[in-house]
Amino acid sequence: PGGRVALVGAGPGDPGLITTRGRRLLAEADVVVVDRLAPQGVLEELDEDVEIIDVGKMPDRHPVPQEQINALLVDRARGGKIVVRLKGGDPYVFGRGGEELLACRAADVPVEVVPGVTSAIAVAAAAGIPVTHRGVARGFTVVTGHEELAHVPHGGDHTLVLLMGVKRLSQTTDELIRAGHRPTTPAAVIERGFLPDQRVTVATLGELAERAAAVGATAPAIVVVGDVVTALQD
Amino acid sequence: PGGRVALVGAGPGDPGLITTRGRRLLAEADVVVVDRLAPQGVLEELDEDVEIIDVGKMPDRHPVPQEQINALLVDRARGGKIVVRLKGGDPYVFGRGGEELLACRAADVPVEVVPGVTSAIAVAAAAGIPVTHRGVARGFTVVTGHEELAHVPHGGDHTLVLLMGVKRLSQTTDELIRAGHRPTTPAAVIERGFLPDQRVTVATLGELAERAAAVGATAPAIVVVGDVVTALQD
Repeated sequence: PGGRVALVGAGPGDPGLITTRGRRLLAEADVVVVDRLAPQGVLEELDEDVEIIDVGKMPDRHPVPQEQINALLVDRARGGKIVVRLKGGDPYVFGRGGEELLACRAADVPVEVVPGVTSAIAVAAAAGIPVTHRGVARGFTVVTGHEELAHVPHGGDHTLVLLMGVKRLSQTTDELIRAGHRPTTPAAVIERGFLPDQRVTVATLGELAERAAAVGATAPAIVVVGDVVTALQD
Repeated sequence: PGGRVALVGAGPGDPGLITTRGRRLLAEADVVVVDRLAPQGVLEELDEDVEIIDVGKMPDRHPVPQEQINALLVDRARGGKIVVRLKGGDPYVFGRGGEELLACRAADVPVEVVPGVTSAIAVAAAAGIPVTHRGVARGFTVVTGHEELAHVPHGGDHTLVLLMGVKRLSQTTDELIRAGHRPTTPAAVIERGFLPDQRVTVATLGELAERAAAVGATAPAIVVVGDVVTALQD
């Protein structure tokens, strides 16, 4: 009776980049379900009687399976609770929000999706890189999978944002160059976007993997490839 | 003395989808520079002594040239004002935020960029379309220009978001099909996203232009092409 679920995009990590709608829903929540990508700062303001459930997927811990997260959302909502599922970035950008929506619908639980600031764009911005810029790039592509690299646009005037492991970065850049990207295209690795120790490594596409390895780049990181990488530099 | 500029992404139009940082900056602003893409709702809460400057580009009115907007931001900040440049969506997604940033920097005016919820993703979400969805699409591309249509990925498992005129929609869909897109790929036109009269027209890519013409689709609208269009439908 009265239970419901909101899938809230919490933005890229800076607590100021959650939406006002998301903030309001958090203030009303009885239960908040978070993972490691959700900004921790916004949790500090919650009342003590709010149940916080961490389904975080740490690299060396077992993640909570998606089906179990779905079941949890439905269970708490059926118990009459206002449930906020707080997700890093936007719920529909690699956030599995669609799966959680379908699970709630299948259980006849009212569900709302609140878009968020996606990390794919905002982390680049935090590094001083605009994904589009007049006279430089009129479009952009965001991909997670290696299998897509052969099919993305290959001019420096179309920005690529790669959300995939930095471990395989040399394979990634090799694949892009083999598919037609100029090795001289500007590129960047941005580690720990919006955290105090954010680090940006800029190089040409051909040299990026080596440079990233030299500084010991690690996850979480995003990679941006395109002429926009240097568009705002002095 | 103390003057500065913030380029604030106001989100896709719903006043609840501005960030809390953006909202706070608005509350501090002496001057707010808006255009037609900025949500009007958030302006209603401003104090009466806040100067609101509309540089809106209406289809039938002359727009204020970008150079003049840049000069305005710099001028007011040099006069000691806290200036918020409120932009629809995100400042770096076709928002010309990079140009305004460079203009401020060149004038030694302190400038901050506040990312926003991009309409490219959120308007699709408002129509019940996730730009990515497990087992359906692992990546997405956002483009504005016709010249890019031949180079974007052409599988239904990679989502396309097209921010370009619905007037030339039949040319757009023809170009995509000629470049390799299946005519049976699901597609949608979403008009007036987040407004009370939002309208969604779904068809196959091959039939989308005809269906959109039949209902009289007009700008502002975004087009989404890919298997995600029907992923959350019953």
